[in-house]
Amino acid sequence: MAGEETPKSIEPVTKEDSPMTEDLAKEEITHSEKDLPITDEACTRVMIAVNQCSKGYPKPSISSRAAFDWIVKNLIKPCCKKRYKLLILHVQVLDEDEDGHLSSSMFSGLKELDSVYASPSDFQHLRHEERAKGASLIQYFIQKCHDSEIECEGWIKMGDPKAVVCEEVKKKNPDMLVLGSRGLGTIQRMFVAGVSSYVTKHVDCPVIVIKRDPKDIPDDPMND
Amino acid sequence: MAGEETPKSIEPVTKEDSPMTEDLAKEEITHSEKDLPITDEACTRVMIAVNQCSKGYPKPSISSRAAFDWIVKNLIKPCCKKRYKLLILHVQVLDEDEDGHLSSSMFSGLKELDSVYASPSDFQHLRHEERAKGASLIQYFIQKCHDSEIECEGWIKMGDPKAVVCEEVKKKNPDMLVLGSRGLGTIQRMFVAGVSSYVTKHVDCPVIVIKRDPKDIPDDPMND
Repeated sequence: MAGEETPKSIEPVTKEDSPMTEDLAKEEITHSEKDLPITDEACTRVMIAVNQCSKGYPKPSISSRAAFDWIVKNLIKPCCKKRYKLLILHVQVLDEDEDGHLSSSMFSGLKELDSVYASPSDFQHLRHEERAKGASLIQYFIQKCHDSEIECEGWIKMGDPKAVVCEEVKKKNPDMLVLGSRGLGTIQRMFVAGVSSYVTKHVDCPVIVIKRDPKDIPDDPMND
Repeated sequence: MAGEETPKSIEPVTKEDSPMTEDLAKEEITHSEKDLPITDEACTRVMIAVNQCSKGYPKPSISSRAAFDWIVKNLIKPCCKKRYKLLILHVQVLDEDEDGHLSSSMFSGLKELDSVYASPSDFQHLRHEERAKGASLIQYFIQKCHDSEIECEGWIKMGDPKAVVCEEVKKKNPDMLVLGSRGLGTIQRMFVAGVSSYVTKHVDCPVIVIKRDPKDIPDDPMND
């Protein structure tokens, strides 16, 4: 981030060969301000929050896949893959019982909440029931990164997506966060727009919300 | 954008060597859905809207420079500069006379509103009064791109920044739009937050708002 760089003086654009007039040249930029070296080659850490489609695991939502594809098309060019690391978070929502109480019983004994996945081989030892949940979703994206030789790391948290995404951004401190948005729809839009607008307001890092193309809305909303 | 790609089938993550169980393998991803090829090497067009500091031209605002620096640090890596083009827009705000009427007299006869700047040499023939306005601000960023061998194009429009940025996004159809935000402050924050939140809601392309680091607020607000 800009604030982490060592302050250095800014070279004014007024050079000997500059067409800028003298009076403007006097408008010198103060040395206390900062400017990043344009040759900075640090690794950029891109965080993405993904979720499953309405049918459930393991299929990712269209908007999550669109956000992932956007990253690969617009951020991580094949010629400089090594300069990026993808951080893939999935927030598994808690079940509600008949009385409206939240239940975490489905998570009891699962290793997945303590795990960090970085390669397809990390999924080989999962139990059957674990594969049917968040890990299978993370596996989808880890496999895609692996196929494309993009360094990555995936993990699962449970709770309210809004709050958990903000907490994880604070912990991981990525250079940017990418969120998919269903873009259109009714109840779904209200939910998803809620997450992305809440997160955008509450995290410090830049947030990129990828709105889904209206023509990508599936005929069967369960495929969404 | 994802919607422009030719639809193709999605390869399920369940391969022979995949740890995924059979029941999950049946959850095949439908062929009507889209997936971008991970090897796409198209040029990414990044649009940035820049403004001057409170003191006036030619000095750029700190948030505009921070947004530019963020692009250079996090998007355009030195190893793949040729895959990006920076589109630099400056919206010059109209003057208001004593009766509250907007005046465009300061623009009369200026070539800058019809011009597209792509190289420092494009500024050599500007008249004195033109250099004192928007063109001098655009020149600052064109020079930085030129020094770093980043392909670019800058242009100036006049009017209400909110509306004009949205119009120009529609015309130019960039892959993403980057906006700097003062992040903190009082009246300034209200104005800038207004622009970025309005634009984020009203354009189709992904918008990245770069919040300024609170410690980058200058002692003299006129340097902002």
